[in-house]
Amino acid sequence: MQKVEPKKEVKTIPPKGADLSEWYTQVCLRAQLVDYTPVRGCIALRPYGMAIWEMIQSEFDKRFKATGHQNAYFPLFIPESLLMREADHVEGFAPEVAWVTEGGGEKLTERLAIRPTSEVIIGTMYAKWVQSHRDLPVLINQWCNVVRWEKATRPFLRTLEFLWQEGHTAHATEAEAAQEVQRMLEVYREVAEDVLALPVIKGRKSDNEKFAGAVATYAIEALMPDGKALQAGTSHELGQHFAKAYDIKFTDVDEKVKHAWTTSWGVSWRILGGLIMAHGDDRGLVLPPAIAPIQVVIVPIIKKGDESVLPAAQRLLDELRTGVRVKLDDRAEQTAPWKFNEWEMRGVPLRVEIGPRDVAEGKVMIARRDTFEKSAVPMGEAAARIAGMLAEVQNALYARAQAYLQEHTAEQTERAAFIEALKRQEGFALALWCGRAECELDIKAESGAVTRVMQGPAPEGTTCVYCGQPARVKAYFARSY
Amino acid sequence: MQKVEPKKEVKTIPPKGADLSEWYTQVCLRAQLVDYTPVRGCIALRPYGMAIWEMIQSEFDKRFKATGHQNAYFPLFIPESLLMREADHVEGFAPEVAWVTEGGGEKLTERLAIRPTSEVIIGTMYAKWVQSHRDLPVLINQWCNVVRWEKATRPFLRTLEFLWQEGHTAHATEAEAAQEVQRMLEVYREVAEDVLALPVIKGRKSDNEKFAGAVATYAIEALMPDGKALQAGTSHELGQHFAKAYDIKFTDVDEKVKHAWTTSWGVSWRILGGLIMAHGDDRGLVLPPAIAPIQVVIVPIIKKGDESVLPAAQRLLDELRTGVRVKLDDRAEQTAPWKFNEWEMRGVPLRVEIGPRDVAEGKVMIARRDTFEKSAVPMGEAAARIAGMLAEVQNALYARAQAYLQEHTAEQTERAAFIEALKRQEGFALALWCGRAECELDIKAESGAVTRVMQGPAPEGTTCVYCGQPARVKAYFARSY
Repeated sequence: MQKVEPKKEVKTIPPKGADLSEWYTQVCLRAQLVDYTPVRGCIALRPYGMAIWEMIQSEFDKRFKATGHQNAYFPLFIPESLLMREADHVEGFAPEVAWVTEGGGEKLTERLAIRPTSEVIIGTMYAKWVQSHRDLPVLINQWCNVVRWEKATRPFLRTLEFLWQEGHTAHATEAEAAQEVQRMLEVYREVAEDVLALPVIKGRKSDNEKFAGAVATYAIEALMPDGKALQAGTSHELGQHFAKAYDIKFTDVDEKVKHAWTTSWGVSWRILGGLIMAHGDDRGLVLPPAIAPIQVVIVPIIKKGDESVLPAAQRLLDELRTGVRVKLDDRAEQTAPWKFNEWEMRGVPLRVEIGPRDVAEGKVMIARRDTFEKSAVPMGEAAARIAGMLAEVQNALYARAQAYLQEHTAEQTERAAFIEALKRQEGFALALWCGRAECELDIKAESGAVTRVMQGPAPEGTTCVYCGQPARVKAYFARSY
Repeated sequence: MQKVEPKKEVKTIPPKGADLSEWYTQVCLRAQLVDYTPVRGCIALRPYGMAIWEMIQSEFDKRFKATGHQNAYFPLFIPESLLMREADHVEGFAPEVAWVTEGGGEKLTERLAIRPTSEVIIGTMYAKWVQSHRDLPVLINQWCNVVRWEKATRPFLRTLEFLWQEGHTAHATEAEAAQEVQRMLEVYREVAEDVLALPVIKGRKSDNEKFAGAVATYAIEALMPDGKALQAGTSHELGQHFAKAYDIKFTDVDEKVKHAWTTSWGVSWRILGGLIMAHGDDRGLVLPPAIAPIQVVIVPIIKKGDESVLPAAQRLLDELRTGVRVKLDDRAEQTAPWKFNEWEMRGVPLRVEIGPRDVAEGKVMIARRDTFEKSAVPMGEAAARIAGMLAEVQNALYARAQAYLQEHTAEQTERAAFIEALKRQEGFALALWCGRAECELDIKAESGAVTRVMQGPAPEGTTCVYCGQPARVKAYFARSY
């Protein structure tokens, strides 16, 4: 077998502004987040990418548990006849299903879908578990892999197989289900903004854009540097659609047998793609400290004959270790500048440089990844300063992304200007809209953009920016990933 | 759709000694660890079962990381041509593969295997990542689902899809790979014995029983109450088989290009099945405190008109919460005896009962799940006593299982007695053995048992208990799950 490609060296990547798509791919590969595999559309998540994903998982997971949810695990396979029971759901997902047709050396009598999402199999189980109002609400989440057969794929953003979490809940009333949907949307916003430093817009999806089988879909949308929106998490009111199709019924306090109201909500590793695109720069990845597997890297600058630096670096490592995620890069075979480049490429928020003169003067140099600012800090103050600087980097990344989002969200009130803005692909166009599916398709045909989320209602007596019919909502329009 | 079955109530289960198999299934269902699904051979892991699995995962994961391993994630799919490259591996796994043959509405040009294990896809990636001796060792683990098309299935013990971890490492030398295999086998033993209270025997597998594609397989084996052995974890020396088949090569310090030496090692949720069988009793599940999601349940015994008990129970909850995983069962709709039964069924190690007289006397009753002993404990000493009692329960479960293992491991030196012992299925028969595959098949044909692990070498000049040829090892024989 031939080696698939030569070993990646840390070297220059295309400027982010010149070719975002190529920049993105190169950063994913060279920061060693992922690699391509011989399986079309499937990536290998390398240890560094996995470490970031594990941190993101843990941030979500603790919030899911704090809001009363428990984890569980349901089968990978869904028998075809079971999948086919909710009409809209089938129509939405059947075209992208991967089918198992053979197992144990025999042709199966019924095809098994690999889950593209698990409403169907989980709904079937809830029908067994729910009998009485006392069994409600059911609040369950699962972390798993799912498969959707996509034509074009890109690391994290669109892959055949992806890792995600899917929450599935069942409630006695419509109001309670609606509350759950908003509660989890808010958890998504909180993690995106407070942890990933990724400002998002919350709102409801149009009928064209909602989840297959949902009554209403809500989403958080982030804005990428090329002016395209990225859907980063969705939360669905499923009404009684799945409860009726899969027979989730309960005896209520009034002794009547009723169908439950269900919800589902999901975030995938796609949000990691959003994070890379939003914060990275021409030198590579820039990680928010909250989810950086290595928050601080110590790079000793060793001159021949000097024996003071490594012990000092080691002492600093021991001191920092209790408070932050820190690594000492003491590899002898690489130069300090080479290491600087590598850890910049991999997005480590702070770099501590320590050379013989620093040791002699009792100080270190601390470099910020986001601004490249360097400060000389007395050795004894390093630990305290680093804690403060990590918080500063976290806040600065959010502020920068937030400013970008604001600068690239423009209200549009005239049809021609609205379409022109969408064509220029310069971010969100916020406009009054009629809410009609046909109108959205016309806008898409003319501009390539659709509504990303809607917030409403529109003021009384206003009209749609595009078709002139009565406006019902304010909508954020953009092209999207 | 019809409800699949009526709601499970907590009620009697068959005595463990009378019908272990039915007892096991009922405990799995009634303790709400798992449920059957409409997908043949696939179970749903319910929140309580998942919580136990998450605790077991975390015990393994922290030890993997402490021994220098990192997590990663590789594709679910393996293209058929790739799977076919290591001959023994194919022969072992091809018969139990599930195949995806259609995706996105089209027939695939090449079938995709759903991973039964990931040596193939991970080996392919290591070939890309390893160039120089400096890239070694590669020490990676993945937590994932795998699929093996089994005919007969049982919760945890044998399921079509199961959750597991698989470690995959690559090394510059055979000796280093061999060390890794023993290091991880020891991690498995440590978690089994110190955390799960499951005594195990460590040793090497015979050629008949080793992993398809391995040079040598090592395993930990536990003994179940019916005298059958359960393989609870395996660690494989893969030699250069996979490195040669998948082209994992590196330039060594001597500038020569060499194939790497690889290992793999895995533990699945099967170990949870072993835990259930080993420790449970006629009232249901018995969990070792180390992995019990609820270590202590407080059951208030409320008499009509009394208002002292709930506040006292709440104060105790608040006090215990910082040190142990504790739950207050204050459901009004269930009686205290009903709750006692339920939490016994679910294996909670300690139950604290608190009634009006206890409150008046400033004490609580603490009941041990494993021995049913009850002690009156002054309220003020409850927290300290509970910490001690949890340790006692953990130790007592291990000691009981260890005594059982010792009592059911008998040295056999005579052929007839050896075969009779195996036929009686009363545990391990430890005997000198020649190590020949044919001899093992003859023993299996006559007794139903095989070697579970071998320890060696046999003393000079001794002979095989069965065939009389020169003995090479001491082997533990048993029937197995």
